[in-house]
Amino acid sequence: MTSDFVDVITSGLDALSPYKDDLRIETDDMSTLMVGAPEPLLDAVRDLFSAAARRPAHVTMHVTLSRGCPGEPDDPSCRCDVLERAQDQPLDERQTLAARAVKDAPDMGVGIDVQFSLYVMGAGGHMDEIYGCIDFLKASGTFLASKNFCTRLRGDAGAVFETLRQAFLRFGPAEGHVTIDLTASANSPSLA
Amino acid sequence: MTSDFVDVITSGLDALSPYKDDLRIETDDMSTLMVGAPEPLLDAVRDLFSAAARRPAHVTMHVTLSRGCPGEPDDPSCRCDVLERAQDQPLDERQTLAARAVKDAPDMGVGIDVQFSLYVMGAGGHMDEIYGCIDFLKASGTFLASKNFCTRLRGDAGAVFETLRQAFLRFGPAEGHVTIDLTASANSPSLA
Repeated sequence: MTSDFVDVITSGLDALSPYKDDLRIETDDMSTLMVGAPEPLLDAVRDLFSAAARRPAHVTMHVTLSRGCPGEPDDPSCRCDVLERAQDQPLDERQTLAARAVKDAPDMGVGIDVQFSLYVMGAGGHMDEIYGCIDFLKASGTFLASKNFCTRLRGDAGAVFETLRQAFLRFGPAEGHVTIDLTASANSPSLA
Repeated sequence: MTSDFVDVITSGLDALSPYKDDLRIETDDMSTLMVGAPEPLLDAVRDLFSAAARRPAHVTMHVTLSRGCPGEPDDPSCRCDVLERAQDQPLDERQTLAARAVKDAPDMGVGIDVQFSLYVMGAGGHMDEIYGCIDFLKASGTFLASKNFCTRLRGDAGAVFETLRQAFLRFGPAEGHVTIDLTASANSPSLA
């Protein structure tokens, strides 16, 4: 939200450089595609937005996360131990592990707002997993509010993106098609 | 993407005024919620973005569309004849009706780009509906390209938002939980 937006976007994309060996990264005129395992992928998204949010301008970022899409099989580089183990763990154990990961998240030194929706496709009982995820979110320390069709988070970028990664990986079937649709915001004049 | 962003946003929201009797509209610091039937709702989204896109600055808009969310029952004001009839119609008939609606869409006089994903939750066979929807999209006249996990549209705002409305209403189970996650863009310097 600045006439200097090209510089904000390109310097944000520069923050992806450390991840270029671990992720496939392709930028076009509308968005950037990143393919890889959840650990470097969410770290890269966090670092990109943190770099932009440390500048003075109001910035927002929209992200779609997808795993297990049947029409588009996951690349072998996307392999994730957390997901493979999740299938054998009861919901309450996954909630405990997710809460611990958020507590251990690095401090990025920049406060952000996020609103997001978690979608679990093509399986019965998807609402049980969503309600289980909402219980984790409410106790995560980054929960701000429930809104129509989405959840608001607020906090340091480190804790907020770790909350999103845990919601994405530990809930919904390990081999199912799960997506997150999220908007991040920083430096909004509406909050001043 | 301009330092004058507050004026662009507020004048975009002014374009919603004709819809205030038909829709519940609530704006907070991150987004605007609109609740109502698909006819006025998609018209309102189209008019908001068209108003912003007619100005010179590069603008983007992110929209999440949701129907049939089990945790959040549809308001009676959301009742939609197209959806109620869709349940009895075979896929090819729905594709024909969707194509005709796009052909009859008004010309808004402003070209836009969109990328979007359609999600069908909690039901078997959701990929059949998605592939059926993709066939409609490819013949719609607004199709630009398939990308990882989403579809690119390009054209006049009237035809593009009609394409989105048809994809949202005519595919996936009539009483199921269906969402669309979309980003619209206009005046991007990347395309100059």
